[in-house]
Amino acid sequence: MRVNAYAAPAAGQPLAPTTVERRDVGANDVLIAIEYAGICHSDIHTVRGEWGPQPFPVVPGHEIVGTVTEVGADVTGHRVGDRVGVGCLVNSCGRCAPCLGGDQQYCAEGPVFTYASTDHDGTTTQGGYSTHVVVDAGFVLSVPDGLDPAAAAPLLCAGITTYAPLRHWGAGPGKKVAVVGLGGLGHMAVKIAHALGAEVTVLSQSLKKQEDGRRLGADHYWATSDPATFSELAGRFDLIVNTVSADLDINAYLGLLTLDGVLANVGAAPGPMSVNGFLLGSARRVLTGSMIGGIALTQEMLDFCAENGIGADIEVIPADRINDAYERVLASDVRYRFVIDVATIV
Amino acid sequence: MRVNAYAAPAAGQPLAPTTVERRDVGANDVLIAIEYAGICHSDIHTVRGEWGPQPFPVVPGHEIVGTVTEVGADVTGHRVGDRVGVGCLVNSCGRCAPCLGGDQQYCAEGPVFTYASTDHDGTTTQGGYSTHVVVDAGFVLSVPDGLDPAAAAPLLCAGITTYAPLRHWGAGPGKKVAVVGLGGLGHMAVKIAHALGAEVTVLSQSLKKQEDGRRLGADHYWATSDPATFSELAGRFDLIVNTVSADLDINAYLGLLTLDGVLANVGAAPGPMSVNGFLLGSARRVLTGSMIGGIALTQEMLDFCAENGIGADIEVIPADRINDAYERVLASDVRYRFVIDVATIV
Repeated sequence: MRVNAYAAPAAGQPLAPTTVERRDVGANDVLIAIEYAGICHSDIHTVRGEWGPQPFPVVPGHEIVGTVTEVGADVTGHRVGDRVGVGCLVNSCGRCAPCLGGDQQYCAEGPVFTYASTDHDGTTTQGGYSTHVVVDAGFVLSVPDGLDPAAAAPLLCAGITTYAPLRHWGAGPGKKVAVVGLGGLGHMAVKIAHALGAEVTVLSQSLKKQEDGRRLGADHYWATSDPATFSELAGRFDLIVNTVSADLDINAYLGLLTLDGVLANVGAAPGPMSVNGFLLGSARRVLTGSMIGGIALTQEMLDFCAENGIGADIEVIPADRINDAYERVLASDVRYRFVIDVATIV
Repeated sequence: MRVNAYAAPAAGQPLAPTTVERRDVGANDVLIAIEYAGICHSDIHTVRGEWGPQPFPVVPGHEIVGTVTEVGADVTGHRVGDRVGVGCLVNSCGRCAPCLGGDQQYCAEGPVFTYASTDHDGTTTQGGYSTHVVVDAGFVLSVPDGLDPAAAAPLLCAGITTYAPLRHWGAGPGKKVAVVGLGGLGHMAVKIAHALGAEVTVLSQSLKKQEDGRRLGADHYWATSDPATFSELAGRFDLIVNTVSADLDINAYLGLLTLDGVLANVGAAPGPMSVNGFLLGSARRVLTGSMIGGIALTQEMLDFCAENGIGADIEVIPADRINDAYERVLASDVRYRFVIDVATIV
């Protein structure tokens, strides 16, 4: 089955309309007619070759929402007409300890990502900037009725990426959580942490988005460009989720943690962090990272978002504006996620 | 009460006999006739001024074992004649969250350390290279009968420093624990991790001490000077306790951790660590530190060591050999702890 898509033909080239082949629907597969695909910063890194060589042409997109149009003979969890989602993962070995523990993203053999990845049948995966996709049913999520399908798309990456460390490290009532950066990831972290019952503080470069931050659920908002922020908030937080992809002075943030506090990086800063060991030892602080989340946790996150009325704040665009949208993402000119209306991919 | 002691008169000067004043025994105090005092690397750092200016003269020593010779009116937990111990802490505020949680070492007002620290009455604390010490009963540990008093002394610092992260991070049956460095701290970590039921690996620069390591309880022993060690052990460990005080390539060790594995530093490396964030995020690895341990946990550790027949491997010396012993510690020429026979301080 050949389907319409938008692909980057080579590193750094603009995305352009094309077609890609989708495999036949196997016994465990689900064929999805895609309605919406979010634009993630990772898409841009990948097609620009910033994360190493890629198997071009690459169809990006791992924030996918659509409806089921066909299921394989052995599929029981999804039916034709269901609204479903696909995130960053479309396969994993299923046998290693992480997979058996529900952490497919940490599969010991390496998970199969939704695009630019080699699937178990040897083919290269192609992502959600496309009219249809065939995915193993074990990696297809149910999108609850209460969620707006366009606003749900970014939950599949930005949502789970922030939900995972918030849940893993116990964000909830009585916990003070800081979110560093108020972009695509950060705005989801604020909404989710607030809904989990935590006291939420945004740490942003300036106070420019302060009103937005409070509307999204932040109790407090501080500018990291002001050195006083770091003295006044010293030892304050139980958990800091750092969503910034730029290098930052990690010790300044470690100093904001209380005893047993945790700093979890979910952004992908390019350089190494220079860490002062004394800041860790003097209050048993934890520096860690987190990468997306497993399938069961992603479903839990979608259900949680539906129960709490959480979607991403989005700007829906037609496919012919993808390249402009990329420029605007790089200029931080989006509040807070672009979502492609896939009906415009023709 | 003036008592005999060995003190460093100034930064970098050899230790020499002197006398120091001990306070009158207050209602909550315990007067201890010291029998043994361990020599910790921290003593050397402190008297050499490597950890900043100090209130010289300084009497080091925070691995103290002795017998109670007098107790204050309100003391109920210790009686004259009891064998007791004192570690790195002799006071704390008692009201902050860490103190109330039993983590006096992380007291929000700063704990009072056993020497070179300002006590709540404004006096400067003086440590265990001395015939007697007066300590608040809340910071005096009971040394169980089964422990050899000389071999028990190093448990008060080296023991609790390694026991704390091993317990906090769940070392036990089914867990793979690596100990980096086989010195004073490392040899205690091996004994304790083994007694806790973990599978223990020593990661040492060379294989020189391999026989020792296995005798102490290590199941495996690898040389970190061999690059193959890092490829063969990749992703192996649930917990790495790093006891080395020198800077090392922390990323090489992070790569040895499995999913959710923890690298806890207990050594005091001078420089910052250059941490590759991808190594944290790609397996939710944790980088943390740990500093000694609270009073209740120290008592638990002493009881655990008594039940399991664990003491430090020691070389007992007379006080007039303290300066030679310092040189030998710096040359790593001790297996594995010097303990001063305090009867020789006259």
